[in-house]
Amino acid sequence: MADPWKECMDHCLEVTKEAGKMIREALQKDISIMQKSSPVDLVTETDQKVEQLIISSIKEKFPTHSFIGEESVAAGATSNLTDNPTWIIDPIDGTTNFVHRFPFVSMSIGFAVKKEIEFGIVYSCQEGKMYTARKGKGSFCNGEPIKVSGQEDITKSLVLTEMGFKKDPEHFKTMMGNIETILTIPVHGIRSPGSAAVNMCLVACGAADAYYHMGIHCWDMAGGAAIIREAGGVIMDISGDSLCTAAMLPTVHSCNQASEEVVWIVDVT
Amino acid sequence: MADPWKECMDHCLEVTKEAGKMIREALQKDISIMQKSSPVDLVTETDQKVEQLIISSIKEKFPTHSFIGEESVAAGATSNLTDNPTWIIDPIDGTTNFVHRFPFVSMSIGFAVKKEIEFGIVYSCQEGKMYTARKGKGSFCNGEPIKVSGQEDITKSLVLTEMGFKKDPEHFKTMMGNIETILTIPVHGIRSPGSAAVNMCLVACGAADAYYHMGIHCWDMAGGAAIIREAGGVIMDISGDSLCTAAMLPTVHSCNQASEEVVWIVDVT
Repeated sequence: MADPWKECMDHCLEVTKEAGKMIREALQKDISIMQKSSPVDLVTETDQKVEQLIISSIKEKFPTHSFIGEESVAAGATSNLTDNPTWIIDPIDGTTNFVHRFPFVSMSIGFAVKKEIEFGIVYSCQEGKMYTARKGKGSFCNGEPIKVSGQEDITKSLVLTEMGFKKDPEHFKTMMGNIETILTIPVHGIRSPGSAAVNMCLVACGAADAYYHMGIHCWDMAGGAAIIREAGGVIMDISGDSLCTAAMLPTVHSCNQASEEVVWIVDVT
Repeated sequence: MADPWKECMDHCLEVTKEAGKMIREALQKDISIMQKSSPVDLVTETDQKVEQLIISSIKEKFPTHSFIGEESVAAGATSNLTDNPTWIIDPIDGTTNFVHRFPFVSMSIGFAVKKEIEFGIVYSCQEGKMYTARKGKGSFCNGEPIKVSGQEDITKSLVLTEMGFKKDPEHFKTMMGNIETILTIPVHGIRSPGSAAVNMCLVACGAADAYYHMGIHCWDMAGGAAIIREAGGVIMDISGDSLCTAAMLPTVHSCNQASEEVVWIVDVT
């Protein structure tokens, strides 16, 4: 049977390349920064332009499809996931990196049907790395198959996370405490690249062994979730329940709010 | 007057490219890991081979020159800096990254004469970025001029540091406390790429605004010091004294021991 979503994935790749070009061009220019809610939560004109480009291009080709996009939600759009084919989009994951031209800036698109992720694409624009995954068909970086490291020993692991200032003192204390706990295991190291989608891809290709994150949004995860799963990894919440088989429904359903739970993305199947 | 050290810098570039090829080839293979002192202090066969390649190639061409190399010092060589032309070498900066194939792995070479750094080269092998700087001639990445961001406001800064387990509880507490203090300023973010030399180059090209490090060695800094300085940045210890104009003498003199001081590498001239 022909793949019913091949046309969508092909189009997604095309629009991702086009949008990536727009991001790279913007990185050459001066960037007018708008602040969304705090100095650490930056959004740029490019962020919004890229999301508009992606959504309008997809809408033209697939007018009945639904969308959940970071910038649209920030502007007041709803984000309820239905059974309808839905594109879950983060136009620029790593906005702070983008503003500073730090090397990890990515675009993330996950495509869900009946609440299952069918394919995911993450494009790390400055590195020139296009990560792709189709359900049941494996994960790839620039066309080359990738897989998770298979490391099961935490003391031999390189762990990814992100650190940021939290207004809630308890939240901040938990974040710092988690870093301290993991370092004292000890692990090989902790790295903070600054893009959730890139972090997931680094685990998917075995360059890191695990990634955990407090307060991740569905658009940060949707593309990377397919890439992790197809590379042999799992995504779970702190109870150990998989968030991957049911297409991360708890997160997606409430995706106008960041998940309060720690999400672990590991490579042990 | 002709540049008396041009021949040395040209040769350095050649040997760096050759050694970079060796590192990239090794990254394709299985890596036999030897542990130096702890699971987070890894050293590989490649690390030693690369240093031997660099030193033997330079010795053949410049037999009277001196060397300070991370692996040679680990094997018992002395590391006193004299007025003699001296090559200060870190064959693989980011050994943990190397073992995990995390994207930032670099080679760093600084060349000192009369205790002043004349030129520095840092090659980020996986990114394919060759950073070079000659005293008084500016800094370059793959031949393109680079400069620091010029950001003077810490609240608008992206800050780099590294986190690791420390056996000394006081040292560990200070490290965690520093991260907490900086995050709560707040800054735009903290990133941890895992290679001191790459961190310095990221500041030199404006992708980050500052980098601080507790317990840095001279071979981690010698190449990057020239690149930071020529890109318009400064290197200082916690007292605010510049470590750059006098070629980081305090650190170089005691470089078989990591500096106990926090070293700030910032972009404000």
